[in-house]
Amino acid sequence: MTAGNTIAVDGMGGDDAPAIVVDGLDRFAAERRDFRFLLAGDEAQLRPLLAAARHAAPLTELMHAEAVIAMDAKPSLALRQGRRTSMWAAIQAVKDGGAAAAVSAGNTGALMAIAKLVLRTAEGLRRPALVGSWPTLKGVSAVLDLGADIAADAEQLIEFAIMGEAFARAVHHKPRPTIGLLNIGSEEMKGHDSIREAARLMRELNLPIEFLGFVEGDDISMGAADVVVADGFSGNIALKSAEGVARMFTIALRESLTSSLRAKLGAAIALPALAALKARFDPRSVNGGVFVGLNGIVVKSHGGADAVGFARALAVAADLSASDFQSSISANLKRLGEALTMRTAVGASEEPAK
Amino acid sequence: MTAGNTIAVDGMGGDDAPAIVVDGLDRFAAERRDFRFLLAGDEAQLRPLLAAARHAAPLTELMHAEAVIAMDAKPSLALRQGRRTSMWAAIQAVKDGGAAAAVSAGNTGALMAIAKLVLRTAEGLRRPALVGSWPTLKGVSAVLDLGADIAADAEQLIEFAIMGEAFARAVHHKPRPTIGLLNIGSEEMKGHDSIREAARLMRELNLPIEFLGFVEGDDISMGAADVVVADGFSGNIALKSAEGVARMFTIALRESLTSSLRAKLGAAIALPALAALKARFDPRSVNGGVFVGLNGIVVKSHGGADAVGFARALAVAADLSASDFQSSISANLKRLGEALTMRTAVGASEEPAK
Repeated sequence: MTAGNTIAVDGMGGDDAPAIVVDGLDRFAAERRDFRFLLAGDEAQLRPLLAAARHAAPLTELMHAEAVIAMDAKPSLALRQGRRTSMWAAIQAVKDGGAAAAVSAGNTGALMAIAKLVLRTAEGLRRPALVGSWPTLKGVSAVLDLGADIAADAEQLIEFAIMGEAFARAVHHKPRPTIGLLNIGSEEMKGHDSIREAARLMRELNLPIEFLGFVEGDDISMGAADVVVADGFSGNIALKSAEGVARMFTIALRESLTSSLRAKLGAAIALPALAALKARFDPRSVNGGVFVGLNGIVVKSHGGADAVGFARALAVAADLSASDFQSSISANLKRLGEALTMRTAVGASEEPAK
Repeated sequence: MTAGNTIAVDGMGGDDAPAIVVDGLDRFAAERRDFRFLLAGDEAQLRPLLAAARHAAPLTELMHAEAVIAMDAKPSLALRQGRRTSMWAAIQAVKDGGAAAAVSAGNTGALMAIAKLVLRTAEGLRRPALVGSWPTLKGVSAVLDLGADIAADAEQLIEFAIMGEAFARAVHHKPRPTIGLLNIGSEEMKGHDSIREAARLMRELNLPIEFLGFVEGDDISMGAADVVVADGFSGNIALKSAEGVARMFTIALRESLTSSLRAKLGAAIALPALAALKARFDPRSVNGGVFVGLNGIVVKSHGGADAVGFARALAVAADLSASDFQSSISANLKRLGEALTMRTAVGASEEPAK
């Protein structure tokens, strides 16, 4: 077992843990025989579940952890419970070099707090961000920050762009992802100063990323940019507002197609097409948010994800582990730092030409 | 003709003006014989169109205006073209007391700039906001600010709540609308200081509005609050992100239901149900954003709205004109001012109990 192909899994995190977690692990293991797993949690509960998971069992080592962080626990409490928890054990395995990535469906705030404490923010970066996958008409885009923090200045937005770009290459398999900065369209006031400054810098600094300029909220689902960059407050508002509409449409469509005998008949006939539509926007297929910007890979599965969803979060961890994700971020952050330093040195920052 | 039941219409604003505007006017006039209209624009173009509009013609007076503000003109240019434009003429009619409300499908930035210049911000208010209707599972909610400005402090958010509440009563016919403040859910950092302060003040000041607390982005489409309050940047991001998902689903559903002969057959059978679904989320039924907080009512129709949509924007103007919209906002703003003054006077603002 080497760290590069080992994923540490929080066996106890999530609404239906540990059963769903072990089931997801088994599904993933059936597909990807090249990975090994460290499964953290209560051995008495996990051992029989794992014994029944025929694909995962031979590839998995148990790490006993007696405590579990409740889904609604405050992060401060989670930090106090600390090392005795399955979540901490999974992240510690990454820190110690035993695993390349950690995956948890547990409490988001706690995961973020423990991951930051144990793994620390990567050098050259001020704050980590949360990146997620957003289904679009063209396929999928990466959006960040989804709420690791509430604000971001211009340089942080550029850091997000660098991290999102690496995520889109590793997880969405896009060789040259395009970057858009989320803004609003009113002519008079094109967004916050930080956003306009970030756009100006990204054009000026000549970083090896494909910056498109501003995108608006409605451009995201159209797939206008492969990576959409926003501060954590705006990114979270965008994502949640979009999720709300998706849920509303799903419910309303179901209501509509069961509203009469005739509607039910039509739906039955159109079933293959409707099933394909459902699969196209299956939220499980975009499960797996990533805390980017730490010294290690931490993947957050949705707390309510089923085994298929959890397996997808494991695939995200696997893709990131198997790629140059961390090293390419480091290299681009270094380029950013140098470009900013040089810019200051030659005085380019004073009264830039418009 | 009295101002109270007269609506001034910018005949030349919108992608397909003036034809769509006059058609919309005619549709509205067919329904509501209790309103009169002032139609501003190029008389040579408008007169023959109006002559063919049998419902609207006897209720409408033309106001000649030679110039038109281009849909993509910068607001600064629009202000220079100024008084000679149809947009200005419609707003001036409100200012002069000839009409209770103005409706335009023209350039948003220009409309906002001219409306502010001509009508001025209402007393006791720092800045106007743009409020719109958002379809939800329960019906419809009001959301503001949608981008009249990019930021808002705590007191401005409360002003938005007061104006949105009056809008929901007048236009959505809700006797006692509930108010939610848009925020993000992460435990550690519950949004910007301004939002938390606004929530605290709304609880403390005992205003005659039904404040629910925070709502998240996904709560909007669920109809969790009748009025959702946000700064203009966040509100615009939420609305546009939601619109993008709605468009994506509409396109994908159409693609799905035309993807095979079998799908087409099923869709044909389910057509009445699908038509009802389409009608339920018809964007035309929520057309008509309002610049609230001015000394007069200004309604913005979507630039691409058809006649049905434009008629809906006229209905919004009519509902606002016929209600106590402006006076109830004034009364509540006065209460807010008094409550804030009293609070400062008794020192309640210092170190409030948590």
